Amino acid sequence: MLAEIHEARNRLRGRAHITPVMTSGTLNELAAAEVFLKCESFQRTGSFKFRGAFNAVAALPEEQRRFGLVTYSSGNHGQALALVGLLHGTKVTVVVPADTNPAKLEAMAAYGATVIKCTADRSVIARDLHLRHGFTLIPPFDRAEVIAGQGTAALEFFDQVKRLDVLLVPCGGGGLLSGCAIAAKSANPDCQVIGIEPAMADDATRSFQTRTLQTIDYPATIADGTRTLSLGELTFPLILDHVDDMKTVTEEAILDAVRFLFLRMKLVVEPSGALGVAALLSGVVTGPGRIGVVLSGGNIDPEILVKAATVTSPSR
Amino acid sequence: MLAEIHEARNRLRGRAHITPVMTSGTLNELAAAEVFLKCESFQRTGSFKFRGAFNAVAALPEEQRRFGLVTYSSGNHGQALALVGLLHGTKVTVVVPADTNPAKLEAMAAYGATVIKCTADRSVIARDLHLRHGFTLIPPFDRAEVIAGQGTAALEFFDQVKRLDVLLVPCGGGGLLSGCAIAAKSANPDCQVIGIEPAMADDATRSFQTRTLQTIDYPATIADGTRTLSLGELTFPLILDHVDDMKTVTEEAILDAVRFLFLRMKLVVEPSGALGVAALLSGVVTGPGRIGVVLSGGNIDPEILVKAATVTSPSR
Repeated sequence: MLAEIHEARNRLRGRAHITPVMTSGTLNELAAAEVFLKCESFQRTGSFKFRGAFNAVAALPEEQRRFGLVTYSSGNHGQALALVGLLHGTKVTVVVPADTNPAKLEAMAAYGATVIKCTADRSVIARDLHLRHGFTLIPPFDRAEVIAGQGTAALEFFDQVKRLDVLLVPCGGGGLLSGCAIAAKSANPDCQVIGIEPAMADDATRSFQTRTLQTIDYPATIADGTRTLSLGELTFPLILDHVDDMKTVTEEAILDAVRFLFLRMKLVVEPSGALGVAALLSGVVTGPGRIGVVLSGGNIDPEILVKAATVTSPSR
Repeated sequence: MLAEIHEARNRLRGRAHITPVMTSGTLNELAAAEVFLKCESFQRTGSFKFRGAFNAVAALPEEQRRFGLVTYSSGNHGQALALVGLLHGTKVTVVVPADTNPAKLEAMAAYGATVIKCTADRSVIARDLHLRHGFTLIPPFDRAEVIAGQGTAALEFFDQVKRLDVLLVPCGGGGLLSGCAIAAKSANPDCQVIGIEPAMADDATRSFQTRTLQTIDYPATIADGTRTLSLGELTFPLILDHVDDMKTVTEEAILDAVRFLFLRMKLVVEPSGALGVAALLSGVVTGPGRIGVVLSGGNIDPEILVKAATVTSPSR
């Protein structure tokens, strides 16, 4: 997989943004560590998902790509694939839940994607479109090229900051976590890679601890990017092999982190993207050392930001 | 003044952040130009004001600095001077209007400043404290070292992007605008430097056009950093000499710009900081060419961000 991550980096050169790394003296003090934030919120379409989607589509044979692409996603992967389709001049269909936020539908439509709302199992409908029209299914995480694309974020991060003792990565379906773990271990085999999940969506943590794939009923966590029901067939074994630990954070800690990033660091980060900072601010992960945190995305619902910014936390 | 800007840069080295420059394909398309955003929102204390305050205080003789510092400001200059005092281990007193936002008072207090609320003319009280206690008054803009410090933002900007055909700078009291104009002309004498003001606070534009200092009654613009009543004795002639034009933008255009920066670019920028982007998005300034924009600060009231993010503009 490491070779595939390097290949992905070549494909993404000049197409994905090299996202900046930010630091904060206040955060260093609070975490008792030297903290580096990899801002994938500034990636194209506002999240790391562009990396995996672009790499997966660029890896397809031209004649297959031409037939079109399909996926199921209400969120960042859908937006990312929509832009990737636009860049490649190929048709994209995104199957979304009927109650998807209109702003997200608009974003996908603005990139020229066809959006199909449905109440049934979206992955079944996406597979049906694949069978009937020959669209290639680009799933949100459980595909080697998607995982390899996400791993380029960590490769780039180590290039920018040289050494990291710890790397914190949000975990939903595990594409970003597994890809980043493989890249991080190649840069520094001693780097501790820790996946962070909301306590309300702790299926991956339980899977990691029991070494048996666990699922969860739709988790109503504010971190909507981690509402996946389980890790994938590919991502689960990769996480068992390359990740050192999994930790969970409370909903309150997540809102605290969103607020800190917004008010103190002037960074717009969505709840799923703030999981690593939540772990630091709530003491779930502590220093010393050089701690890297992947801020995975910035596509926050303005109402959530308001909630985070105006609620006074009892913890500080 | 150019020599003083270079001197300020030396003083600020390792003390002020070198703030990143961000770009956006969408913004380039909308503005029909190549646009570069200098993110002073990521400066220490969240605005460019740290540059001028630090330079002015660093330039004081040690024995004078020891007596303490005073200023009048409800906003970014007060926060900046509070941190500068903390860094220099000297007492800071900030005189603020009685109705100042509690979050801003808290930020100044967190840096150890003494905050005095008053309803009378704040500058008179600040001068009185100067006379009675020997505190040195560091005014928000009308002082050479303050202007020179702000000018370092443009010097650094040209270092980062090499060439700019146009530079857009927000204008309140004119410290940032005059300092940046001098620095920009030294880097590229052909660079057009344009000051941007809210139409509701257009005193500097009228002063520029009539070449006579104009004042304004307290302007209730959303861009609270530009609510100064007039340019200063120092900044006005510098602006006449070094600035090419002044333009105004509507309140709606300012909110539009805040929204664009937040939703599309994931940047937290306060209304005064978004004036240049407002000019581009509303067509007040147009391409082609390489256009630099100083995003002067990110200390936005969360409620204003909510308003910007949720109001649907009829213009797009």
